[in-house]
Amino acid sequence: MIVDVSRKILIVGLGLLGGSYAKALRRFGFHISAITKEQSSIDYALREGIIDEGSTELDEGLIGEADLVIFALYPHVFVEWIAENQKLLKSGALITDVTGVKGSIVYKIQDMLRDDVEFIAAHPMAGREVSGVENSTEKMFFGANYIVTPTEKNTPEAVSTCLELGRLLGFSNVTTLSPEEHDEMIGFLSQLTHCIAITLMTCNDKENMEKFTGDSFRDLTRIARINDVMWSELFVANKDALLRQMDMFAEKFSSLRNMLESEDIDGMREMMRHSTSRRALFDKK
Amino acid sequence: MIVDVSRKILIVGLGLLGGSYAKALRRFGFHISAITKEQSSIDYALREGIIDEGSTELDEGLIGEADLVIFALYPHVFVEWIAENQKLLKSGALITDVTGVKGSIVYKIQDMLRDDVEFIAAHPMAGREVSGVENSTEKMFFGANYIVTPTEKNTPEAVSTCLELGRLLGFSNVTTLSPEEHDEMIGFLSQLTHCIAITLMTCNDKENMEKFTGDSFRDLTRIARINDVMWSELFVANKDALLRQMDMFAEKFSSLRNMLESEDIDGMREMMRHSTSRRALFDKK
Repeated sequence: MIVDVSRKILIVGLGLLGGSYAKALRRFGFHISAITKEQSSIDYALREGIIDEGSTELDEGLIGEADLVIFALYPHVFVEWIAENQKLLKSGALITDVTGVKGSIVYKIQDMLRDDVEFIAAHPMAGREVSGVENSTEKMFFGANYIVTPTEKNTPEAVSTCLELGRLLGFSNVTTLSPEEHDEMIGFLSQLTHCIAITLMTCNDKENMEKFTGDSFRDLTRIARINDVMWSELFVANKDALLRQMDMFAEKFSSLRNMLESEDIDGMREMMRHSTSRRALFDKK
Repeated sequence: MIVDVSRKILIVGLGLLGGSYAKALRRFGFHISAITKEQSSIDYALREGIIDEGSTELDEGLIGEADLVIFALYPHVFVEWIAENQKLLKSGALITDVTGVKGSIVYKIQDMLRDDVEFIAAHPMAGREVSGVENSTEKMFFGANYIVTPTEKNTPEAVSTCLELGRLLGFSNVTTLSPEEHDEMIGFLSQLTHCIAITLMTCNDKENMEKFTGDSFRDLTRIARINDVMWSELFVANKDALLRQMDMFAEKFSSLRNMLESEDIDGMREMMRHSTSRRALFDKK
């Protein structure tokens, strides 16, 4: 469906991600519209030519004409939008999202959605330390992962359309996972790493440390600059999976601590060799 | 003293660091010799012209002629070397080191050392994920910190010579700390970060995770490739300070975990804002 460029795409939420979607999809000639909170975001996008139309209102024309609607909103805003406004969607429309957690969102949306509209969930695993449509760029997607998380309610057509969307956006790896597999993976690879970074950044307030900081500490705390509104919401939305990952980490950290206390050199060396060989797997191919 | 290029420098241990010292100091015209285990390292250094002479033996000529001796050895090997071979040092020689921990080394060496030889300790905070003299490069030192850790036993002359050595090597920041301040700082900024990286790398052995790994996880685990022999020795040599840092981290991590469990959004957001503002301090200037 998506390669038919006569189809109209609506992006709800024109920030860093929504804007990057618009920039990436624009190349293919789709008619792209946007609904977002700030008029300045619409003005920017029109000026840059990355959307055809835009509104800060719930424009019934824009919503009612869209064949594909991409929601780039905070999780709870997305859920509220569907609850209140799904009546405005076109019959037969396909909707998708960019939400970084899945289990707590996908089933909720699918359960409340009209029968003549289909929701296929996706997580574009890309981001920057800055926000706003002005910082958007499709380059964010190069080399990155795009994960579609279908459920039993999804049609094969919607799944393949969403996979195609990921490829058109420019993601290097486009794949599917169940919502549960996704949440466990993201809990470990992304959320746990952010928990670690903010803990390291705040556990020792001694002064003048920055004078001696080398690359290791900087690497581990790059993501300690964090959008507190978004990430606290994402953490809670994935609470069970993230708690399991945090407990797994804390247990291993504690065992390293105890090996150090008892000067168990052999034990520490074995853990370091395990770490070294496992890290090799994660080198960029 | 050191700017007098007629002085002879001996490097004991010609690996990554020792070789980088030779390459950096060579430019100034010093006579540089080396003693190291492997003949291949000596051969490489002679071929590259970064040393004048070298030996795999305890060459009494090389040792007895050196005005400045730089020990680039594992901590326990350095201590053993001094205990066994200090009689070979020239009267009036200055010796220094590259050891990454200080309190457990500096006093031990100074207490056992002959009265006519002075030991001034230093820590060049630079490294690479590879080892060996073949990978040495003075570029390692650009932008990095060089810390001299004097004690009451040191003369002002030795301290300023050692500071000058750091500047000649090309370090961007050359400074002094007490051995205790150094060990606390290094325990936090370097050793704790390595503990975290190897824990993250080994706490979850689920397969196929590398397919979904993004930059955050890669950044946090870059240093999870680790020399198990060296780091386990350095951890134990700084055990008390590192245990304090590990406990501080674990306590903060546990409080984040409990905020998540009780869905204390405000508490998590406050921690994230603290993290964000503190991280700004650590941006590269």
